[in-house]
Amino acid sequence: MSVYSPRLARLIDALRRLPGVGPKSAQRMAFQLLDRERGAARTLAQALTDALEHIGRCPSCRMFCEGGDCRYCTPARTASGHLCVVEGPADLMAIEAGTPYRGRYFVLMGRLSPLDGIGPDELGLDQLQAQLATGDVRELIIATNPTVEGEATAHCLAEIARAQNVAVSRIAHGVPVGGELEYVDGGTLAHALSGRRQV
Amino acid sequence: MSVYSPRLARLIDALRRLPGVGPKSAQRMAFQLLDRERGAARTLAQALTDALEHIGRCPSCRMFCEGGDCRYCTPARTASGHLCVVEGPADLMAIEAGTPYRGRYFVLMGRLSPLDGIGPDELGLDQLQAQLATGDVRELIIATNPTVEGEATAHCLAEIARAQNVAVSRIAHGVPVGGELEYVDGGTLAHALSGRRQV
Repeated sequence: MSVYSPRLARLIDALRRLPGVGPKSAQRMAFQLLDRERGAARTLAQALTDALEHIGRCPSCRMFCEGGDCRYCTPARTASGHLCVVEGPADLMAIEAGTPYRGRYFVLMGRLSPLDGIGPDELGLDQLQAQLATGDVRELIIATNPTVEGEATAHCLAEIARAQNVAVSRIAHGVPVGGELEYVDGGTLAHALSGRRQV
Repeated sequence: MSVYSPRLARLIDALRRLPGVGPKSAQRMAFQLLDRERGAARTLAQALTDALEHIGRCPSCRMFCEGGDCRYCTPARTASGHLCVVEGPADLMAIEAGTPYRGRYFVLMGRLSPLDGIGPDELGLDQLQAQLATGDVRELIIATNPTVEGEATAHCLAEIARAQNVAVSRIAHGVPVGGELEYVDGGTLAHALSGRRQV
């Protein structure tokens, strides 16, 4: 006999599938939802069903989008001539929230990782190539993460852009603003030094 | 304009209501569910709806229960003559999972806390009193947490049991098994010393 009754066990299992939620947290969530937060539980169930039904992918930038209109593929953004390539939706959100950049995006939904079976096809690189070929994009800004896979992806993206004669840039890597040199790791410091700019 | 589209914002808000989930985790959960885990999202929505519909409270022990039969109020458990009072469902689960105790329970769903407006009525103490009055219970085991409110609740429970001439006991507090005296706090150590037993 399981410790939980069947429906409770199913709820706890479903909550455990959320990222960062282990057995204890899932149990705590289930008990709190059933005890004091039944309204919140109902809202969550509805929000999930609703999101699954109505949130899809923008065919152009591959970001999540509701209905037909993508809020990141507006004519104003297209007119800027900038296309920023990021690995995931969270990266796009971070750039939108923290920077004045208001150009278009291309969300890879991953990064090149042959061992995990993620190649150019999974990242939609042919689709990106087609967008660069239209001539709407003046500059491709590569904002993949500075990891081994992210750098490999950046290299591949740069080659695609160069083949289409589109200017290509990579966001700067260096000492974080507010950080202290003393506590910055060697790799970041080396990047900061080699990427120095005349003032 | 919000950073998120309306349905995405609603999903992230709903996820934030879960205990221990902040804005960043909620965003991560939403993106993961929409990107790679659509099946898990559907399962979660169904499990929530299903649990809300079918999981209620046992009228006798106040634990969550499905359908009419409470798995913690069986005749075999009643026959043991033990009734263990705990603050919440997680405490009951911990005792079930970690100890051989197989008597009945009474789940307070809280603890006496006048400042938060939680008094004897909210904890169902009159209901407990009625159960003790039937004469089925030989011993009331108090397993509330060793906090100020938990101790106050324990005191109140003990008085109720004594008024009904039911034997009453409190679970032992002392040095955790596997713990080292050196690292145990003073309060626990004082409890352990005053609660010493002849060997």
